[in-house]
Amino acid sequence: MMFEVLFQKFDEKIQLTEEEKELCKSFFTPKKLRKRQYILQEGDVCKYVAFVEKRMLRSYTIDEKGNEHIMQFAFEGWWISDHFSFLTGEPAVYNIDALEDSELFLLSKQAEEQMLQKVPKLEKYFRILLQNSLIATQRRLISSLSQNAEERYNQLINVCPTIPQRVPQHMMASFLGITPETLSRIRKQIATKS
Amino acid sequence: MMFEVLFQKFDEKIQLTEEEKELCKSFFTPKKLRKRQYILQEGDVCKYVAFVEKRMLRSYTIDEKGNEHIMQFAFEGWWISDHFSFLTGEPAVYNIDALEDSELFLLSKQAEEQMLQKVPKLEKYFRILLQNSLIATQRRLISSLSQNAEERYNQLINVCPTIPQRVPQHMMASFLGITPETLSRIRKQIATKS
Repeated sequence: MMFEVLFQKFDEKIQLTEEEKELCKSFFTPKKLRKRQYILQEGDVCKYVAFVEKRMLRSYTIDEKGNEHIMQFAFEGWWISDHFSFLTGEPAVYNIDALEDSELFLLSKQAEEQMLQKVPKLEKYFRILLQNSLIATQRRLISSLSQNAEERYNQLINVCPTIPQRVPQHMMASFLGITPETLSRIRKQIATKS
Repeated sequence: MMFEVLFQKFDEKIQLTEEEKELCKSFFTPKKLRKRQYILQEGDVCKYVAFVEKRMLRSYTIDEKGNEHIMQFAFEGWWISDHFSFLTGEPAVYNIDALEDSELFLLSKQAEEQMLQKVPKLEKYFRILLQNSLIATQRRLISSLSQNAEERYNQLINVCPTIPQRVPQHMMASFLGITPETLSRIRKQIATKS
């Protein structure tokens, strides 16, 4: 497996020397995942943050009524984890699985700590990354508190126009916190309008 | 104004020398805010991240129907900002004001960058901080997507037991995305049960 996308992402935010890049490589564990395979199940401890080098993963919870709620889609170049469980060692609240056959780089807690010690520039990379995740999550939260289903759908399409081609409709509905029927109705209405 | 709480918070996560602490002080601008005074209004560019040394602030948006949605309460020792606007220079989507007479330390973008260059250990501090904010915001999001009003109220009380004493009831309702009437009904039900 190549580190192509990972280093492209590093290069966007920080400048690493070739030596530092070589050093980084030693901390990551490559992992191939078949569609529907898990890297984390609710209740287990989350031992890794995962970088998606190819294809896509998602994280989700299942509530007491058996409904799935998707926390995050992670496309190529994105990170995914149960941050709380990874940080504290407490049981995870999310499941993380592959939506297609995917390629990942896994980083354990110990590997992350050592890598940050050896290559402190990465502190900045992860800080920026977390900042962007926080911004996106705050927006989704405000949107879920203040917008109706159609407004939420439009915002999602605005932020990520290719998502209807990449993600099954029932998962988009789960991400938006609406039923597949409501999503289907909204998409028909929009198609009629345009 | 003293830097007491700020350095206490730094000390919890990283180890700064006395010299580094002195250096840090030079980057912060102390600011006193009277109750209801703003440090940011929607549509303006957010020029600062603010650390709450005393009392409390909140950030909120107002939707098209005129309803307030509280994004965050920031108590003593917490940070608050419109991260997206601060990062990009785009107009802010949040208002930030004081709920009581408060004392802050403001950090401009330039000051933040210089401080991080001079005291790189702070990269780690801010990374951990953002990680914790992300975890909390993800929880609120999942909670808003999957839980009913009573479950959301109970979770909030669980995480922050003193909040009913610190925040007016209509603001708690706004934070939870429910009406004040619903909140009042829930609190009565819980009082009857116990």
